[in-house]
Amino acid sequence: MISLLTDFGQKDGYVGTMKGVIHGICPNAQVIDLSHDIPPQDVQSAGFVLWRSYRYFPKGTIFVCVVDPGVGSDRHILAVQTVDYTFIAPDNGLLDFVLSQERIRQMLYVENPAVMNSTISQTFHGRDIFAPVAAHLLSGFLFTQLGPLAHFQLPPDPFITLSPSGNYEGKIIYTDHFGNLITNIRLEKGENQVRMIKVGNREIGGLVKSYAAVAEGEILAILGSHGLLEIAIRNGSAEAVLGKEMRIRIDVT
Amino acid sequence: MISLLTDFGQKDGYVGTMKGVIHGICPNAQVIDLSHDIPPQDVQSAGFVLWRSYRYFPKGTIFVCVVDPGVGSDRHILAVQTVDYTFIAPDNGLLDFVLSQERIRQMLYVENPAVMNSTISQTFHGRDIFAPVAAHLLSGFLFTQLGPLAHFQLPPDPFITLSPSGNYEGKIIYTDHFGNLITNIRLEKGENQVRMIKVGNREIGGLVKSYAAVAEGEILAILGSHGLLEIAIRNGSAEAVLGKEMRIRIDVT
Amino acid sequence: MISLLTDFGQKDGYVGTMKGVIHGICPNAQVIDLSHDIPPQDVQSAGFVLWRSYRYFPKGTIFVCVVDPGVGSDRHILAVQTVDYTFIAPDNGLLDFVLSQERIRQMLYVENPAVMNSTISQTFHGRDIFAPVAAHLLSGFLFTQLGPLAHFQLPPDPFITLSPSGNYEGKIIYTDHFGNLITNIRLEKGENQVRMIKVGNREIGGLVKSYAAVAEGEILAILGSHGLLEIAIRNGSAEAVLGKEMRIRIDVT
Repeated sequence: MISLLTDFGQKDGYVGTMKGVIHGICPNAQVIDLSHDIPPQDVQSAGFVLWRSYRYFPKGTIFVCVVDPGVGSDRHILAVQTVDYTFIAPDNGLLDFVLSQERIRQMLYVENPAVMNSTISQTFHGRDIFAPVAAHLLSGFLFTQLGPLAHFQLPPDPFITLSPSGNYEGKIIYTDHFGNLITNIRLEKGENQVRMIKVGNREIGGLVKSYAAVAEGEILAILGSHGLLEIAIRNGSAEAVLGKEMRIRIDVT
Repeated sequence: MISLLTDFGQKDGYVGTMKGVIHGICPNAQVIDLSHDIPPQDVQSAGFVLWRSYRYFPKGTIFVCVVDPGVGSDRHILAVQTVDYTFIAPDNGLLDFVLSQERIRQMLYVENPAVMNSTISQTFHGRDIFAPVAAHLLSGFLFTQLGPLAHFQLPPDPFITLSPSGNYEGKIIYTDHFGNLITNIRLEKGENQVRMIKVGNREIGGLVKSYAAVAEGEILAILGSHGLLEIAIRNGSAEAVLGKEMRIRIDVT
Repeated sequence: MISLLTDFGQKDGYVGTMKGVIHGICPNAQVIDLSHDIPPQDVQSAGFVLWRSYRYFPKGTIFVCVVDPGVGSDRHILAVQTVDYTFIAPDNGLLDFVLSQERIRQMLYVENPAVMNSTISQTFHGRDIFAPVAAHLLSGFLFTQLGPLAHFQLPPDPFITLSPSGNYEGKIIYTDHFGNLITNIRLEKGENQVRMIKVGNREIGGLVKSYAAVAEGEILAILGSHGLLEIAIRNGSAEAVLGKEMRIRIDVT
């Protein structure tokens, strides 16, 4: 299975063209859209969406990620193999969230022309390189033949983990379609000790268990579906009301 | 086949994640997007889109509908079986349009943890409950094992049916991508007797047979593709010009 | 394989309904979305997206194109067979880009009711005609049985080809999701001779090899992925800054 993540939008046929290329090489490929509405050139949002989603895909899935403002320059294209998945993305930080949390088996630069289109444009490597690489891998092409070993430095952990007791300060790292603000504060185990949360200068209570636990239009903090602290407004957009530039402070016992 | 209907939007990877979960459970599932751009929390629009579309899907299709502002609260999740289809949705009125028109075989509350993810988040039941339930059903899990019988009250008919002769008053119940205004006035058999249509205070002629039957920019009334009276502007947006709050009066002989 | 191109948008379930119809007729159909976000009634943009993309799909693909402001009027529906592909579209110019570049085998008017829904609405031929026609063709229905031969006049070449030496004037024919402005100036072989490019009154240098070759926010000209001259702004929207109404002048040696 191939999963596609781009900032190409839905209008121009770029994504459909990539799928056409994939099916031309691997007719029975299953292709699933992860997102194509990453804001243009927003490498961090792409990385976050990928990190939050990839574990829910079947083992063996090949993730093709094309948010690539450096297309046509001398930037590398990375291919990463972990125990369960393969990731292909420009070497621009897009994979940092995933790489900081995953055990990597092998990381290569994609350079083998045998897995690319015969003509390569300057502006659309999604069509000319990323799509055919993924389709060839799915058809059995050997990962190790994609190119030479990549230089790799483990990215720092992007999340703040709460150790019992103390004050922590985090920030908004992603805003979703509903205007929910997702922070870099990892709550996974600490959610029972949260005493106070401050959004900018505004104190809000502790965590609630559902959006419906507060009145319509009220601000709330909740443990999001990916283990991070999330700020929301019931039936409204926290982004529209609060913006997304504020610091988030949290106090745990 | 599974068909997905949500208000998740296209940006965040929520829909792709649901598909990942489905394919992890049922690798050969066919999944078709009905819509993911229902306005956030707009349960009625979701219900209308579902009603208008479901009959065109192959028998056996499982419709998974997640417009769910009550996620994480104690709202129930409904599973409904009709002669031809299965519907899964929060118990918030989303299924009212369909239920008012369909013969129901069985209606249950989804409660069996065997068909859910092992961990269930507070905010993303699409991933943790709805998607796995549908995938398990598609893989042969027995409908009757999903949970206990639901309490059910037949919703009222949402449409106004024209009996020969008289004046009727309806309203706009849905606005589509083109800005066409869809009313709750069912024309199916009465379209030949329409004498006069009034949109707010504006009298427009009778029904036309195609958008192209009037000049560009002119308002028209037409029998929509789902048997309802529709107000449109040729090559323009009736919503932008007229709004959607007005009453629609219709006079039939 | 069937590829769908419409201006239906993502919200209303129109596209999902077409897929439901297709799978009801041809259960194993592979259906790929080319685009559904063509601006409403923008026949030219649809034609351009189709032209730019179709060659990347597997041979045998059936392209179903529904940007159809004349739906319900007496406009014809065309079915076109080329050596490798089939195209179905309203007879409104949508296919002009493709037809001006392709060798046509046969062109018919779709009129055979055997390949349509039994009930045909006035407003949604995507569901009632286009989808079933494509599904029946994919299931083996004979192309020649769709209807009578169409009257056909070869459309003029929409592109300007640079012959060595001289001044040429072109225009913007498409704006993509990133705000890149695509011109009708075909560069394929002439790109090495470009001396000067003028965008409206603004002189910009010659062609660059990648977006990253200029500073952020700077205007650039580049050979696009479809062989046409493209005007862009690095990490920005050329459309937002420049508009799309200006003339493009190019000087080649």
